[in-house]
Amino acid sequence: MRAVDIIARKRDGYTLSGEEIAFFIEGYTRGDIPDYQAAAWLMAVVWRGMDAREATDLTLAMARSGDVLELPAHLAPVVDKHSTGGVGDKTTLVVAPLVACMGLAVAKMSGRGLSFSGGTIDKLECIPGFKVTLSRAEFVQQLLEHGIVVASQSADLAPADGKLYALRDVTATVESLPLIASSIMSKKIAAGAHVIVLDVKAGKGAFMKTEAQAEALARLMIDIGRGVGRKVGAVISDMNQPLGWAVGNALEVSEAIATLRGAGPPDFREHCLTLAGTLLMLAGRAPSLEAARLSLAQALDDGRAWRKFVEWITAQGGSAEVLEHPERLPRAALREPLCAPRAGYLAELDAYQVGMAALRLGAGREKKGDAIDCAVGVVLHKKVGDRVERGEPVLTIHANHAARLEEARHSLLGAMRWSEQAPPPVVHLHKIIS
Amino acid sequence: MRAVDIIARKRDGYTLSGEEIAFFIEGYTRGDIPDYQAAAWLMAVVWRGMDAREATDLTLAMARSGDVLELPAHLAPVVDKHSTGGVGDKTTLVVAPLVACMGLAVAKMSGRGLSFSGGTIDKLECIPGFKVTLSRAEFVQQLLEHGIVVASQSADLAPADGKLYALRDVTATVESLPLIASSIMSKKIAAGAHVIVLDVKAGKGAFMKTEAQAEALARLMIDIGRGVGRKVGAVISDMNQPLGWAVGNALEVSEAIATLRGAGPPDFREHCLTLAGTLLMLAGRAPSLEAARLSLAQALDDGRAWRKFVEWITAQGGSAEVLEHPERLPRAALREPLCAPRAGYLAELDAYQVGMAALRLGAGREKKGDAIDCAVGVVLHKKVGDRVERGEPVLTIHANHAARLEEARHSLLGAMRWSEQAPPPVVHLHKIIS
Repeated sequence: MRAVDIIARKRDGYTLSGEEIAFFIEGYTRGDIPDYQAAAWLMAVVWRGMDAREATDLTLAMARSGDVLELPAHLAPVVDKHSTGGVGDKTTLVVAPLVACMGLAVAKMSGRGLSFSGGTIDKLECIPGFKVTLSRAEFVQQLLEHGIVVASQSADLAPADGKLYALRDVTATVESLPLIASSIMSKKIAAGAHVIVLDVKAGKGAFMKTEAQAEALARLMIDIGRGVGRKVGAVISDMNQPLGWAVGNALEVSEAIATLRGAGPPDFREHCLTLAGTLLMLAGRAPSLEAARLSLAQALDDGRAWRKFVEWITAQGGSAEVLEHPERLPRAALREPLCAPRAGYLAELDAYQVGMAALRLGAGREKKGDAIDCAVGVVLHKKVGDRVERGEPVLTIHANHAARLEEARHSLLGAMRWSEQAPPPVVHLHKIIS
Repeated sequence: MRAVDIIARKRDGYTLSGEEIAFFIEGYTRGDIPDYQAAAWLMAVVWRGMDAREATDLTLAMARSGDVLELPAHLAPVVDKHSTGGVGDKTTLVVAPLVACMGLAVAKMSGRGLSFSGGTIDKLECIPGFKVTLSRAEFVQQLLEHGIVVASQSADLAPADGKLYALRDVTATVESLPLIASSIMSKKIAAGAHVIVLDVKAGKGAFMKTEAQAEALARLMIDIGRGVGRKVGAVISDMNQPLGWAVGNALEVSEAIATLRGAGPPDFREHCLTLAGTLLMLAGRAPSLEAARLSLAQALDDGRAWRKFVEWITAQGGSAEVLEHPERLPRAALREPLCAPRAGYLAELDAYQVGMAALRLGAGREKKGDAIDCAVGVVLHKKVGDRVERGEPVLTIHANHAARLEEARHSLLGAMRWSEQAPPPVVHLHKIIS
């Protein structure tokens, strides 16, 4: 078998065999197949696509390129969730303890934010003392003792994916459904969970701009996961405006805490209940989504989810005191409202632009390795569909530099669209595939 | 400007600007743009294609990546010919002295054979003493003194093309009309000729399998050449069976000598007259192709072309004695006829398979740098359309190893197809674009 022939076959639109895909991925991981051949192959895949069988073989080849975590068999079903990225997406902070308090074991490896999209690990790092880097042994130990662990993704998890992703980033081969799906699923499968729920976003503040694209990605990831024997479902939801109110790391942690204590933004609470309910269903722990949501809502309201959250965070070294007093989280020096320039209905609040404004305030990173500022961000007071009077605060900007605050004010004004009439109601939840 | 954005634009089907193409090629030649980005870009070009303007800009950028030969302005029009490669294609050996004896200056840089296709430089090297490697100064000196020079392509001619071609070879990005056309034309333009005729082959023993593909390639190369101010024409001809009788280096030199002395295979003589006539027309030295062919036929028959050939070859160091006695060229130890297994008409003689049989006898190379055997090859006695009796010799195999001879016999038998009825006459010349 020769790499150049495998490239030519994909170039010519043929379906590659599992053997060919494994040969290519193993050769590339070892360094026998050079970057330039992988780059040509990736562009051919962007061009010709891959069917579900090829994507599954690619996922497996990448998952097997490093260690595959074997989780103790006597555990409760081990569950994981994955979000395709969005703005204000602090879902893991709530869903993980919420399902853990219902008896599911949560083992999640998570990433950092990039560009407009935030990352769970950055948010957790806002909590003083919280340890995001765990060894394999520590990861399993935390899971066994507390039934919940979230750590940053280890470099030996699906190393082929890490190497390929770095190459895709500089060769304009990121945008490909099978490459995106297999990249995500290879890490999920190597991380060992038995049950996986995919939180797939569609809209301006998501990588998939339309519901149809999001659904196609979700279905391909489900096919891949089921093809290797995992229970997988997906929730497809709107990301045209930010999720909840807070965008920015410590601000989102605060909002997650409020939600775990029974308050929080209604859309975010609903979103968490749907995802957690889908996980319970997939794990066979609830007869219906409605029943699951009812018992989960109770766990949010009676403090069980909150207590599990405190147990989890403190077991990973996080400060209990800050959890009890979230006002002690890092706090920006400048906090200024942005007021409505006119009366009317808020018809649009572009999540991408809000995410980019937060990034420029310092909440995100333009490229890997950039430092971030935990404290800064944006807190919404109004959401799409709300009636606003002229001069009423629409949101508050949290900043540590006056110049950046002004820049954010300017771009956030540009992220809003107003209308005289009430816009059609926002449909947050598009589809549940379980 | 960033390489990754240029890759993305081509991936998305946009037309690249001349500035973008120059940025990419210059960056790649300098090493600022790595192989993996060039590989992804090449595959995107294979996918999306390039229009004539882009291909012209690519050609110019590659031509300018090294020295561009400035030929003395007081010379007669300097002409060049380029063949897209074939089997039994010894055309340069006849056309170059034929047009030189009519007063055109011929300056040609040529390549070596690869795979089934032969190369002029390999053929010239069969002549004892002939020097294929010339310095720039020697090249121009030979041109000034004798009006004819053919040398192997220097590495500083369009180095970007050399670098890109090596990459295309291992990334399955060879098969692309704009990449093929700009690769050829960049070297022709850097080599300085004012008038260029393209000898474009179509069929089993050519890179372009159909007449339509060959014509598309010819038209694109003509557009490119005219776009940078050169006079360019093309002759599109059949390469389903070998050209002439001889396939193999010294055997082809012998056949060229016979043709230059007024004999030789009729199809090959015709082919040379058409190409040389097209050159005379393009250079403004003949009122019509018919008139050009008449005076060229005379130059073949009265010895002028032959004398120019001897002058050229000996000026570049070749042995005059061998030219006068071509039987002293390297000669294979084993010469065995292959006889017709049945009576009938020869309906097909697959040029690709004949080329591969000659390669395996030692006449060609599987990969660059392989040594070749000058003496071996195949000489046809029958061509497609000929009536053959059972047991009559169809061709003679010239070999230096008995095992290879047997192998060639087997595969040459497989290259023939027979019919009871006379097949439709072969149309050798498809089209002249001048």
